[in-house]
Amino acid sequence: MNGKFNQKLTTKNYICLMSRYFVKLAYDGTPFHGWQIQPNANTVQQEIQKALSTILGTKTEVVGCGRTDTGVHASAYFLHFDSDNDFEEDKLISQLNGLLPVEIGICEVYKVTQGSHARFDATLRSYEYRIVRVKSPFEVKRAYQFRLLLDVNAMNLAAKYLLNITDFASFCKLGSDAKTTICKVTQAQWEQKNELLIFKISADRFLRNMVRAIVGTLMDVGLGKISFEAFKSIIETGNRSDAGTSVPAHGLYLTHVEYPKNRVA
Amino acid sequence: MNGKFNQKLTTKNYICLMSRYFVKLAYDGTPFHGWQIQPNANTVQQEIQKALSTILGTKTEVVGCGRTDTGVHASAYFLHFDSDNDFEEDKLISQLNGLLPVEIGICEVYKVTQGSHARFDATLRSYEYRIVRVKSPFEVKRAYQFRLLLDVNAMNLAAKYLLNITDFASFCKLGSDAKTTICKVTQAQWEQKNELLIFKISADRFLRNMVRAIVGTLMDVGLGKISFEAFKSIIETGNRSDAGTSVPAHGLYLTHVEYPKNRVA
Repeated sequence: MNGKFNQKLTTKNYICLMSRYFVKLAYDGTPFHGWQIQPNANTVQQEIQKALSTILGTKTEVVGCGRTDTGVHASAYFLHFDSDNDFEEDKLISQLNGLLPVEIGICEVYKVTQGSHARFDATLRSYEYRIVRVKSPFEVKRAYQFRLLLDVNAMNLAAKYLLNITDFASFCKLGSDAKTTICKVTQAQWEQKNELLIFKISADRFLRNMVRAIVGTLMDVGLGKISFEAFKSIIETGNRSDAGTSVPAHGLYLTHVEYPKNRVA
Repeated sequence: MNGKFNQKLTTKNYICLMSRYFVKLAYDGTPFHGWQIQPNANTVQQEIQKALSTILGTKTEVVGCGRTDTGVHASAYFLHFDSDNDFEEDKLISQLNGLLPVEIGICEVYKVTQGSHARFDATLRSYEYRIVRVKSPFEVKRAYQFRLLLDVNAMNLAAKYLLNITDFASFCKLGSDAKTTICKVTQAQWEQKNELLIFKISADRFLRNMVRAIVGTLMDVGLGKISFEAFKSIIETGNRSDAGTSVPAHGLYLTHVEYPKNRVA
């Protein structure tokens, strides 16, 4: 802004007076129809916009780091919003947590540089998919109960192959409007943790339904339904219909999103 | 039984033909009015007796390793029942899991020697009490949310003192019909695990409400409300009213019960 400060603010100048904030939150996706706001359905974005607008006293929109489907959880989700309100960040956290339902928890609120973007600036996202073999009262709607024995070594061998490929068309939901099916997967492995079998995957970007389609196909490998060679050829054909079915949403967690450090204001 | 097998069985003989089984299970206590069967309330014991009686085709009573209060969880609970039915143990597990609500999971069923008793034979029980400092969507009704800072070192010092005492009258619910307030505590410590603060306690026996009263009093130490000396004198007086208030039930878990190995048939 220069010395000749214009008293009659244009829309553009007005936006410049706003500060941008990032919010880190967690949610249990069970009661929500996913992240994205939509008519006649309860969504995480809607709940947060409602609470934030009430507290700040003005209609406030939030932009999330990505969509999550109905029932998908997030242990670390990021959004941004703009405000010209002068609030204390810690106070806003507790006000939001007081207003929001128990299934949404706000962890952090911090100012970022103008133009920072929760979705476009993310350089890496990580997901976990949790499978439980036995009936577990503490994992209801938190992990996919699957009783059959899975060959974890075979699944890890196939998972490792995902690090070498770039085109994930075979794992992209049909009818998706993705402009490109190219992704860079940097982690893909299964870990056993007590009664849970957890698949961890990180990439620069994910296609719609990608993790659940990958997990379903890897489980086919683990069941011996398809060989490692067949798994490779599924990827080569690029046809979603060749891959396994998607596993249920309630085993999936967004666990980590990475941003360039210089975005914090 | 001798060679002259009496065709007209007496009650005593009939009981001898029954086999006794132990069941290991887990439950999320949220929807239940505790373990013990009672009129007009949904309890874990009632759910299991109903399911077991349906599957075995005859009214079957179960005896638990102890009572748990409304909202208290168990990651490892044991019960016994008698049956003259010739069932496959693995099949019974999956039949029970199919019939029981999602909040109860059957882990093991195994035959034990006659006269083994889920309650009287237990030589050690362990509980955990979970506290979470921040609002956590995945710990709703699974941990006690408590925002104030607690001095964990001070709480651990006081907890360690519990290993030296024998009379726990100060931590016994008033009006309890306990014949003795003597317990042998063999473990009592706080552990930090990510956002959770977990108190672990083991003893040969527990008085009613004992763990929740101990945790409440240790938290008073952690808040600096009472000193270590005051904590010791609370124990010496033996008055429940001197100790801290009980913490909420939903942070408490029965996690382990020990039996002599020779009980397995």
